[in-house]
Parts: sequence; C-alpha cells; structure tokens
Amino acid sequence: MFYLSDTELDRLLLDDVAYGDLTTRALGVGDRLGQMTFCRQMAGRVSGVAVAVRLLQKLALDVVVHVKDGEDVAAGTVLVTASGSAEKLHLGWKVVQNVLEWCGGVAQYMAQMVTTAQAINPLVQIACTRKSIPGTKTLAIVAVIDGGGILHRAGTAESVLLFANHRRFYAEPDNWDAMVTKLRRSAPEKKVIVEADNIEEAVAALNVQPDIVQLDKFSPEQFALVMQQAQSLAPRCLLSAAGGITLMNVADYVRSGALLLVTSAPYYAPPIDIKVRLLPI
Amino acid sequence: MFYLSDTELDRLLLDDVAYGDLTTRALGVGDRLGQMTFCRQMAGRVSGVAVAVRLLQKLALDVVVHVKDGEDVAAGTVLVTASGSAEKLHLGWKVVQNVLEWCGGVAQYMAQMVTTAQAINPLVQIACTRKSIPGTKTLAIVAVIDGGGILHRAGTAESVLLFANHRRFYAEPDNWDAMVTKLRRSAPEKKVIVEADNIEEAVAALNVQPDIVQLDKFSPEQFALVMQQAQSLAPRCLLSAAGGITLMNVADYVRSGALLLVTSAPYYAPPIDIKVRLLPI
Amino acid sequence: MFYLSDTELDRLLLDDVAYGDLTTRALGVGDRLGQMTFCRQMAGRVSGVAVAVRLLQKLALDVVVHVKDGEDVAAGTVLVTASGSAEKLHLGWKVVQNVLEWCGGVAQYMAQMVTTAQAINPLVQIACTRKSIPGTKTLAIVAVIDGGGILHRAGTAESVLLFANHRRFYAEPDNWDAMVTKLRRSAPEKKVIVEADNIEEAVAALNVQPDIVQLDKFSPEQFALVMQQAQSLAPRCLLSAAGGITLMNVADYVRSGALLLVTSAPYYAPPIDIKVRLLPI
Amino acid sequence: MFYLSDTELDRLLLDDVAYGDLTTRALGVGDRLGQMTFCRQMAGRVSGVAVAVRLLQKLALDVVVHVKDGEDVAAGTVLVTASGSAEKLHLGWKVVQNVLEWCGGVAQYMAQMVTTAQAINPLVQIACTRKSIPGTKTLAIVAVIDGGGILHRAGTAESVLLFANHRRFYAEPDNWDAMVTKLRRSAPEKKVIVEADNIEEAVAALNVQPDIVQLDKFSPEQFALVMQQAQSLAPRCLLSAAGGITLMNVADYVRSGALLLVTSAPYYAPPIDIKVRLLPI
Amino acid sequence: MFYLSDTELDRLLLDDVAYGDLTTRALGVGDRLGQMTFCRQMAGRVSGVAVAVRLLQKLALDVVVHVKDGEDVAAGTVLVTASGSAEKLHLGWKVVQNVLEWCGGVAQYMAQMVTTAQAINPLVQIACTRKSIPGTKTLAIVAVIDGGGILHRAGTAESVLLFANHRRFYAEPDNWDAMVTKLRRSAPEKKVIVEADNIEEAVAALNVQPDIVQLDKFSPEQFALVMQQAQSLAPRCLLSAAGGITLMNVADYVRSGALLLVTSAPYYAPPIDIKVRLLPI
Amino acid sequence: MFYLSDTELDRLLLDDVAYGDLTTRALGVGDRLGQMTFCRQMAGRVSGVAVAVRLLQKLALDVVVHVKDGEDVAAGTVLVTASGSAEKLHLGWKVVQNVLEWCGGVAQYMAQMVTTAQAINPLVQIACTRKSIPGTKTLAIVAVIDGGGILHRAGTAESVLLFANHRRFYAEPDNWDAMVTKLRRSAPEKKVIVEADNIEEAVAALNVQPDIVQLDKFSPEQFALVMQQAQSLAPRCLLSAAGGITLMNVADYVRSGALLLVTSAPYYAPPIDIKVRLLPI
Repeated sequence: MFYLSDTELDRLLLDDVAYGDLTTRALGVGDRLGQMTFCRQMAGRVSGVAVAVRLLQKLALDVVVHVKDGEDVAAGTVLVTASGSAEKLHLGWKVVQNVLEWCGGVAQYMAQMVTTAQAINPLVQIACTRKSIPGTKTLAIVAVIDGGGILHRAGTAESVLLFANHRRFYAEPDNWDAMVTKLRRSAPEKKVIVEADNIEEAVAALNVQPDIVQLDKFSPEQFALVMQQAQSLAPRCLLSAAGGITLMNVADYVRSGALLLVTSAPYYAPPIDIKVRLLPI
Repeated sequence: MFYLSDTELDRLLLDDVAYGDLTTRALGVGDRLGQMTFCRQMAGRVSGVAVAVRLLQKLALDVVVHVKDGEDVAAGTVLVTASGSAEKLHLGWKVVQNVLEWCGGVAQYMAQMVTTAQAINPLVQIACTRKSIPGTKTLAIVAVIDGGGILHRAGTAESVLLFANHRRFYAEPDNWDAMVTKLRRSAPEKKVIVEADNIEEAVAALNVQPDIVQLDKFSPEQFALVMQQAQSLAPRCLLSAAGGITLMNVADYVRSGALLLVTSAPYYAPPIDIKVRLLPI
Repeated sequence: MFYLSDTELDRLLLDDVAYGDLTTRALGVGDRLGQMTFCRQMAGRVSGVAVAVRLLQKLALDVVVHVKDGEDVAAGTVLVTASGSAEKLHLGWKVVQNVLEWCGGVAQYMAQMVTTAQAINPLVQIACTRKSIPGTKTLAIVAVIDGGGILHRAGTAESVLLFANHRRFYAEPDNWDAMVTKLRRSAPEKKVIVEADNIEEAVAALNVQPDIVQLDKFSPEQFALVMQQAQSLAPRCLLSAAGGITLMNVADYVRSGALLLVTSAPYYAPPIDIKVRLLPI
Repeated sequence: MFYLSDTELDRLLLDDVAYGDLTTRALGVGDRLGQMTFCRQMAGRVSGVAVAVRLLQKLALDVVVHVKDGEDVAAGTVLVTASGSAEKLHLGWKVVQNVLEWCGGVAQYMAQMVTTAQAINPLVQIACTRKSIPGTKTLAIVAVIDGGGILHRAGTAESVLLFANHRRFYAEPDNWDAMVTKLRRSAPEKKVIVEADNIEEAVAALNVQPDIVQLDKFSPEQFALVMQQAQSLAPRCLLSAAGGITLMNVADYVRSGALLLVTSAPYYAPPIDIKVRLLPI
Repeated sequence: MFYLSDTELDRLLLDDVAYGDLTTRALGVGDRLGQMTFCRQMAGRVSGVAVAVRLLQKLALDVVVHVKDGEDVAAGTVLVTASGSAEKLHLGWKVVQNVLEWCGGVAQYMAQMVTTAQAINPLVQIACTRKSIPGTKTLAIVAVIDGGGILHRAGTAESVLLFANHRRFYAEPDNWDAMVTKLRRSAPEKKVIVEADNIEEAVAALNVQPDIVQLDKFSPEQFALVMQQAQSLAPRCLLSAAGGITLMNVADYVRSGALLLVTSAPYYAPPIDIKVRLLPI
Repeated sequence: MFYLSDTELDRLLLDDVAYGDLTTRALGVGDRLGQMTFCRQMAGRVSGVAVAVRLLQKLALDVVVHVKDGEDVAAGTVLVTASGSAEKLHLGWKVVQNVLEWCGGVAQYMAQMVTTAQAINPLVQIACTRKSIPGTKTLAIVAVIDGGGILHRAGTAESVLLFANHRRFYAEPDNWDAMVTKLRRSAPEKKVIVEADNIEEAVAALNVQPDIVQLDKFSPEQFALVMQQAQSLAPRCLLSAAGGITLMNVADYVRSGALLLVTSAPYYAPPIDIKVRLLPI
C-alpha cells in the first residue's frame, strides 16, 4: 500500500475540475443521479484502482471496487463503479480515467517485461529508475510495483551509486579501490554500486569488489562478456544491466546472464484504454 | 511565460534529492567546485529551459542560458550551464535533465505534428487535450506551447463541450436543438462545442448549428464526408478531429479538410536525450 | 458542485482556530456536549452551505443540513445544525458563520441583480469578472453561481480578451482587423472578445467582426448608441457592458439592450447576518 | 512588516494567471519589452505595496517602488513601476492591481475611522476583529495596520473573550464571578475580556472586575450609560464598543466615551481605484 | 481540541513511509490481516492519542481508543488498538509510536512540573514559551496542554513583551515610563509584559507599573528579593520567572513566591516508552 | 547540502511571526535600522547555519556568514550577522536562534559520540534512526550529518530491515532462512538487515547469513558474546548495536567490537546556547 497525501489527490482533482464542469452546469443537469463505470477494454494488469477509489471518495461519491491493483483481468472488466449526482460524476470522470489509463499502461508494460524475463530465469528482477516523468513520482511507483517490478532507488539519498560524474571530482579519479573503500566505510548499511560505461571500466570496477557493477548501455553481448570475467574477478559481485533496456531487448539481457535489469522504459508506456460510461439512474 | 509555483519546483527537487546525494557525501567530494552542462544530443525543438533555470537557481547555482524555449537547435547544442559546488550540481543533475528530456520530447513531437500539418495547410492548429499524464499538467502545457501547439482546454470549467455522457442526463437526450440553445444562453462568452461519436450524431449536431462539432475517432474518410455535409448544413460551424490523432495520421486528417486537430499524443512522446556532464573547475 | 481542497478548508480553519479556543479551555467547559445552529436572519439566497458542512465535518462534528445552496429561504431559517463537544463547536463557530455570511452576501447581491435584469429580459446573463477579492477565488465563484450568475472568465488563460494594454504591444496598434484575425486563428476554440473604451474604439472593433465587443465604462445611453450601430455593422456580434455595473444601474443597461453584463460588484456586497447559537444538550 | 509565505503569493498569482495570458500569446506580442505603472487615482492611504513588490519580483520583473505602505499620497500618484517582457507584465497586471485596490480600500476606510475618532480623542484605538473575509486574513491585517488600526485578536487562541456562547456551557451560567476568577487564574498573561449583550449583563460583568467589558451592539447612548456606571462599579475596567461600528457612527461612540472600538467594517470597504497602464519601451 | 491540518498529518506520514514499507513488500506479507497495540510501558500522563487516531484513520485502519489525552494511566496501559492489513499497520507503526512517545514525554514532564508546583501553591501556573523545537509547534502545544501547562505565547503577534532587544531601538532606551505608556496605549487589549535581566531593571520596570515583569534568569533568591520590593512598588504587578526553569528547580521558585513560571524545559523531555506489537489475526 | 523547500522555511517563520512582532509595532521602532548577531556561547560543532541564512534572506535581511556547518568553533564565535530594519530583525530573531540552538545541540551530541567512538576505533560509524522528533525530519538529518554521523535509514522504503513485527506475519515465522532468502531475492540492490532481540535470535539470524544483524537492546557484554560467535558462524556479516546507545555507553559498545552503532539519542540532545543581540546602527 502506498499512501498518497490529500494534497496530491487534490492536485489531481483541481488540475482538471477546479470551478466545476461548466457543461453540466450550463445544461442544468447537475442534480440528476447517475452511475459511472470504469471498464478496462483489453485484458491485462490492473493499477491505480486504490488511487481511483480515494479520488472518487473525496468527491463524496459512493464507490464499489471490483478488482484489486496488481491483478490480471480479462478484456471488458469493470474495475470501479461510482454513484451520485451528475455533477459529481462529471468531476471524477476524466481525472480517474486518466489515473487508471496511465498507471495501467505502466503496470502492463512492466508486467510484460517481468513475464518475459522470468520465463527465462525466474530469479530475475526488473527495477525502475528514479527517472520517472516529472510530477508523476508516486503514481509511477504505484504502477511499477503493481506491474511486478521493483524500485532501483527512489532518490539520491537512498543508495550509493558511483557515476563518472562523481569520480571526476575525486582527487584520484582512477583510483577505484580508494573510492570503493571510502564508500563502503562511509555507508556500511548500503550496497556499494558502481556504474561502468565500458568494458575497461567494468573490469576496473570488478577488481575492487563492489557489491554491484551497473553496466550502462552495454549490448547483451558486451554484458555476457563482462559476466564471464566477473566469475573469476569478483564472483560475489552482482552485475546489473542499465540504459536502454526495454520490452524489446529484455530477453536478450536475461539470456546474457543478467539477474537485475534497471530501466525507465515502463514510465513511457502507452496508456491502456479505459471506457467510462455515465448513465442516469 | 508560464509561472510555476515554488511549491511545484520544490516538489520536483525533493522528489529526487531530499536528504542530499548520498554518494557525493560518502565520497567526500561535495565542496569541490565544478561545472555542469546540459547538451541536447539530437537537433530539434527546445523546451523546459526556463523551468530548468529556476530549478538550478533554487539550488543557488550560477546559471548561464544558451537558448530559448521554443527554438530549434542543432544536434549537440548546450542548452544550459550551471556552476557551483559538486554537491549542489549533483542535486540538480537528474531533476533538470529529466525536465529537459520530457518537455523536449513533448515539444519535439508537437513541433513535428505542427510542421507536418501546416506544410499542407498553414492555417491548421493542433490543440492538446486536458488528458495530460497525471501530475504533469503545467510542464505538459509548457511543452505543448513550446512545440507550437495550443491548448484544447485546461479543464472542465474553461469551455463548453457536450459529450454523450452529458446528453444522457438531459430530460430529452436526443433533442440536440434544446441542448445547444440552452448551452448557448447559459454561456454566452463561450463557443458551444459538441462531440459526435458517429456520422448520425455529427449530422444531428450540425443541424442545430453549434460553433464547433468535434468528431471523435472518425477516420479521415469519415471526417471528409462530414466536412462535405457541413458545407451545406452549417457553413459557419467548425469541425475538429479528435481521438487517435498522432504524428502518423495527422497529414491524412488535414488533407480531409480538418483545420483543428485535438490530440493527447504528444504527452506520450519519447523523451529526447540530454547528455549531462559534470566537471571539476 | 465545486470541489474545495483540504488545504483550502484547513486554511480557513487554521486562520481562525489554530491552537484551539483559549476561552473554552480556560473556562474548563470543552468536554460538555452541545448543539450549534446557524440561522439566517433575513430572507434570501443561500450560499456556502456545502462548504460549511465540509468544515464542520473536518472538526468531527455531527452535521444536519436543512437547505441547499442556491435556494431562497424565509427569514429565520436554520441552515445547518452541528452537534458535539463544546470545544469542537467553538472551533467551528466563527469560521463557518463567516463563510455563510460572506458567500450569502455575494449570492444575495447577485440574485438581486439577476432578478432585476431578467424581469426586463429573461435572456440576460450576468457574469462576474476574475477580479474577486484576493484570496477568495473559490468561495467567490461558489457564491456567484449560487446567486444565479455566471463566470466571465476565471483567469487569463481561459479566454481571449483584447485590452488596450495588449494592443499597444502589437506592431500596428490600430490595425484591429489584423489583431482580430490573428486571435481568431490562434485560438479557434475561443470566442474573440475585444474591449472598447470609447465609441470610436467600439465602432472600429465592430467593423472587424469579433464575437463580442465589451464596452467598458459606457453609460447606458452610450451603450444603446453602440447597440444601434452594431445592428448594421456587425449583426452577429454580441455587445457586453462592463465597468461600474451594479444593482443600482443594471436595469438601465438591460433596457439599453445589453444581454450580457460583466461585473465585480457582487464581490463587495455586504455580508448577510447569520445568528449562531450554541446550547448545551 | 508582515511576512507572506511563497505559497500565499503563488496562490494569488496562480488563481489568476496559471497557464499564462492567452491573449498575449495568441497575439504573439509576449517578447516585446514594456513598462507597467500602478497609479492611485484618488488621494489617500496606501497599502499593499510591499506585497505588490514581492508578486512582481516573483515574475522576474524589475520593480521600482515610489511610496511606502501606510503613507498618504496625492491623487494621481504612481505607487509602483515594473519593467520586463509583455507576457510577464500581463501576468502581473490584475493580480497586483487587485491587491493594491483591495488593501487600499480597507486601509483608506480604516484611516478615515481613525482620523475621525482621534480628532475627538487622540487616545482612541480602533481594533479590527478576526472576522475578515474568508481567505483574506494576512492581507486584511496588512491593510488594517497600514490604515492605522490595530488587531482585536487574530484568532481564538490569542486572547480570553467570554461570550454568551461560552457561558451557557458553564455549570453556573450566571455566576460571573466564578467564571471571571476561573479565567483570570487559567490565563494569567491575558486580559480577561467579557462580552455583554445588554445593560444588565454589562452591570453584572462590571461587578466582577474583568479587565475589559466589550459592549456588543449597544447604541452610543447605552454605551454612555454603562460608562457612567463603570466609573463607580469598576474604575479600572476598560469598556469597548463592538458590533455595528462604522465610519458613520464612530464619532458618536467616541463622544460617548469609548476609548476602544472593535469593528469589522473596514474589511467590507469598497476598493480604491488603481489605474494600470502598460506601454512598450 | 487542537485541529491539525491534513497537510500536517500527511507530512508526518510521508516523512516516514512514502513509497511504502519495503520489508513488508519484499517479504510478501502485506495482505495478511493483523492488529497493532500501542502500550505505554510506565505510568503517567497521556498525550498524542487524538493525533494518533487521525493518523491511523488516514491509513484506513480500524481504530479503538482506550484512554483520553490528559489522563494519567497505569504502567502497561494499552492506549490505542488498530486493525487492518499488515502493510497498513506497518505504515502506521513508527509514525504513531513516535508521536505518542514524544508528546507523552513532554506532557509527562509538564505534568510533573505542575504537580510539584501546585503541591506548594495550587494557584501556580506553568507556561511554555514559543521556543518549541523547530517543526514541532502544534504537537508541542498539544502536549503542553495535555500536561496541564498553559502557553506563554504562541508567537510574536500574540502579546506585548518588551525585551532589551526592543528597548535599544527606542529613542530613549532607559525611559521605561515612556515605553510602557506607549505600549499600553497601542495595545489596549493586551497585558504589558516587560522582561528584566537584572535587579536594577526589575526595579526600574516595577516603578512604571506594567502588568507583568518577567524576571529572566534570576535565581530563586533574587526572585524573592524582587517579590518583596514589588509589594510596595507595584502591588498589582505580577512577577513571572523565566529562563532556566526546570523540574529540578521549579519548587524553589514557587517557594520564592512565583505564581507564574515560564519555561521551555518540557520540549526537551525524554520521550516515554511505547511498546508496539503487531500480531496476525 | 540539503535542500529545504520554501514551504518548510516559511512554516518555520510563520509558526513564530505570522502577523508581525506586536511589541516592535506597538513601540513604533520598526523602521530603525539595526544589526543582529548570533553568537555561540560555548565551543563546539556548528549546525544550522545554511538554514539560518535562507531564513534571514527570506526576510530580505542582509546576511554575513562567518562559519560553515560542520566546523568546530571556539566559545564566543559569532556565526551569522544580519542587518536591516528593526521589524525585520525581530521577525528573524527567535526563529533563527531556535534553529541554530536545536541543530547545534544535535550536532554537538553527535560529534561527541563520534569523537568518543573513533578515538577507540577510527572505522566506527554512528547512524541515526528514522525516529527523529515528529516534524523535525529535515533539520534532524542536517544536524546529524553536520555532527559527523550518518543516516541509518530515512524511511521504511529505503532499506530492508526485518523486525519481529514482520516475522509474525510470515507463514513460517521461525524460518529465518526462507525469510532472508526471500528478502534477498526481492531486493537485490539492498543489504538484508535483520533485527535480533536476544542471543537466540541473533544466532538464528547469523546462521542464515544476512548482510547485517542488528542487535537491539543488547548490553555491551551480550554484544561481545555475539561478535565472537559471528566470527565462526557468519564472518562476512556485520553486527550493529541498536537500542539505548548514548554518549554514556558508546565507548563500551565500541570496545565490545561494534563497528556500527544505531541511535536516536542525538535527537534528544539539549540545545546549545546562542546569544542574540540586536543593536541599532
């Protein structure tokens, strides 16, 4: 369960419906009672339902939930039903549809990546980066988890990840040993993760035994090559693949031996289609 | 110019760097001075620079801007440069990169749609819907405008747009005349826009002379058919095409006579690539 | 229905009762149970009840509502009753009274303007400007709508309204035709509204056929004069009267032919009188 | 000096200009440089200038201030000048005008009350209640102080003020002595203020020697009568007049001996007129 | 009753559990139902329960309350019980424990000071300063009141308190008479409180008859000395003791005649111990 | 560097000085210019200066900084100087003093713990828990880092830490092996940390080779005992000491072999003394 603040939920609502639905008001039908159904058009992984429920409840609508986040449903499944006055229903319509469609899209993509990867090796994990679309942080994480993924890291304070952009500021930028030792001592409860941008860096990193070497933008073949070297150089060190990992190539990386894939691709998945129908009752 | 609140800018920053950059701190290099450049890898439309500047200034970095939002630049153009301590640079790095990449992607897609459409008919306008990705509202609008698009409407209170989901609540749901008359009287400073989901509805709508009939999910051929009928039925009425309009099919709709296209596609554009390099000075 | 954020409701509460009611606490009577009634002293239009209910519910009081916003009630009508501990009742007292009194005042004034105008011409609409008292935006809009008015525009992004302060920045500030054409093309889903500050400007505007010409600070006689000219110059163009329209002169403008009046006067209406009585139970 | 949060200033801005000024954008004149002057049309007391400056600075405009809050100026005085691009100027225009007009109106009314009262007795103070218009708290206080008034109390936690609505919850609601003693002991750093709704209550209150008896809705004659009795009953007790005190009757109350007047009238003063002119430079 | 905004409660929650409890999620036990009990280990004064309830309710847990804030309970008393899924319980665990422990500690310390002081003189009041730990304002006040204390003042606008840091800016910094007269006239509804930093200042202050002289960092003996002089110099003036008053020395000050003690010590009390146990059901 | 949002800084200011400093205003000295110095009375570790600067700058004061956070200074060192009008200085006085005193106290305590521990073993790290005082999160972290400590974890999503309260929800609560394996697979980028409440649990935990076993409320002797066993059972596993670690006993734990100590004690350190002096200039 992810807790969303009232501020965040209110922002989603007011971004769309501050000052009401002019058309409902101008048409003079706001007081009529009705029901609104959110129906998923295609089969797949559900996400955003818990958020949808809180949004609809904030509008004082009566809500019935039909499925849980993280479940796979058949095409044409009604996810949520809300009842109340036409004006309230119209306030909730697109905000909720939008959450269900976007979260659904991210979760669906992630679920497909996970399914593809774990079909080859059930121990593989797929982690999403902190590079979610600006402003979508919490919803993005909700959707990633509902999709069966995990978080790479939520922010810069959460873990140790040494980039080239860090190394250049170190007195001896090529002294991998000193840097890894320093990081390990400074942050004893964190794994020391080091990013390598090419094979030379990967080897240099493996030689000093960090917990994880993150191979950025390596081809599956390059990844496999480093995997092989790692077995002798640093058998306890985990290798992760990052940069450009998508549903298209995830299988290749898993076949190359990757147990951990780091990706931002699900954030840019197309939204799923949620059909919303309002009917008077 | 779009004014972003400090709350919104702070949210972008704190979503990523609350409690600092652990790696910089653990490595002990935070006080070293450096410079950070944001370089656009491929040519195209720039967006997000004004936001980037405010984010970097909030971190008390010195900022130099090299281009303006809405301009087209060559591949490899440096957009912004920031100077200051390594710890401040690392706080701004990914937040700013992410804004530039996402806004850049949306603007680029929009610019391509506009260029494609206006090459056929320079009077065409492309408007983005209110269905931006949840949480991205202001940045999405910034990027759409930088891309040369316009806003369809920012929310439900801004304009009159009659959907089937409204009509069903009206006492006589098929009395288009009564509904359009009612809307016109209730909202004299707004255009009355009516959505039609098929040709029968489009004809019914045209007969009662709204300002705009929005044809939802019509094929270019269907759109052309209605255009033809509109010339006799309602010559002053504008027809807009909505639903599924993308860079792939925008030309077809313009060739079918559409002067106004309503789309959500740019919101889901892939991000552009911004290379960020931090160097000690 | 207007959705108010929890942030906005909490601000109203904390502006008045942060840190509790010292007198109740010092007197030691906070735990006694009681009932609080909000009674409208004079007959008229009700507004603010929905907001009052949410405020009282946030204080965990039991609330009974007796009337709906937008209704007209007799003198001495109890609008809302709340029950709970004396300390909770005292927290809600003045905040809620203040909302009911202020919204009631605005709605009452607006209702009187609308009644006066529509007695002469039932098709007249009265629109309130965006110049609500700083900080009152949402409540002001609630009250205007409850009073039977409409919104002129909620902000600068909602509609096209060409002021002299815009024209001066245009390359050819007197080329009304070029400006109106440019605006119409740039914003095809908006009516083009042009403000005129004198009869010469009104005629110049009418000649280029905008959707609406807004006559600012015209006397009723001047308004009638332009109405006459408009019939031949621009028969499809609507004329609106703005600037200094109040309950005192609204009838004169309607008699001069105005179908649309734009006013800020209701925002400055005196508050109505709500008697609040707390009793132990 | 009153500190306004960035949140509060941003709310004022975004309530009006979120998503920019459509007309400026549609007209294509946003980049032209210009100057904006805020000119007070009639002579009188200035208020809101410090707030105006912060608002204009948040829009990155260059600001020159010509007068200070709390000063009296001649008709036609320019209060503030701002320079920058047309789009920025248009964002600041009405928000700032509105603040200057509303604060100016409140301060002007207050200044007139103070001048009137102190012409009769220079020791008189006029205090504004906590019943400011919902949402205007900080600006209202700014304007009251700029007008030469003081605050009665900012909220329920600030002072001890015994209302009938409190007394009814006390075990012995008529035992004024017990209540005042209890309040004095519980809040030794506060004056004990007691409200009386009629002469009998006033006498009962005076008999138990609170610090202040607040006479609510007494006529000037009734006030004078109680003043007389107070001289013998409670010579150290201050009497204040509250309820219905306005510019019209303030002199009468002062002549009746009132040294302290408690009023909400300034909050409902009409706004002053600020002429705003934008010019290209 | 103290009203806490949703923003403030959400901040407490999100400071700790934004993005969920990773361990519960990784262990895969989030959906199991359970119960959580908050048990006070040692006897004493309860505080924070009302806040705890609102926090747990925001997480959609079922809550049962066993005691009220401000009560004294025996060791081993369960204060609150919550039921729901393991993932929700884990979100509420430490946030609520932390509130109960910290508020409990402050209230306990305050209760001990009050008990100690009132055992000697039942009329003594102990007031807490505005120097609560940054960020804890509302919770600090809740706990102080639950502990039987009162507030000295919540902020700088609430009361008149003349410090040396004020006097230095006055034209005649040693003219106590002029300053106290000025303050009394400017703020007729406030007591005039004057701080003295040594015996000379105390005597100077007493000579001009303020309502209260606050003796800062006087020893109990010095305090007694001034008490004696005050009886002749200013018999109606209250003396308060401030600066360094703690549970260790409060009795000494009361024995020296102090009726009012001003302290910040409770804010720094050690937290009480709340045992939290989660069990599946 | 820690970025604090404007919202957080404004909250600190407005908690204390909303509506200004009444005494300055009543005394009529607000416009006089002055200087304010913040002087640390005793020698030690500085913290909060960067926050102080931002607070003072928000009040539009001119600020000069004399020392950096994290430095050790001599008794009587002036940390910051601010200049401006008396009213602005009085707004900043206590807010800034309070930040410097509280952060200074936490940092000082932490620095002493670190010095004590590292004198025995320079590789020891002292980590502060997430149980900071409610509402102090960011400032607490600032002070801990300035004191030379590190963060244990900022929240529940940051790391894997298995408590008994988690284990009870697992299908086989005593199957440590299954739980640790599950956690390791689910969170491959995190160290798996397991809390043990007694020696039996510690041994059970060590047997399944987590990354860290956190020994809660073990005496130094018990800690040493487990250290010994760990050398054979799980030589790569780190043991941390948590629960009741303070400045008083930290040396004992380090002597028992602890390399990592987890504590909340610094949060409850007494504030340091900052003398603030305001002088006219």
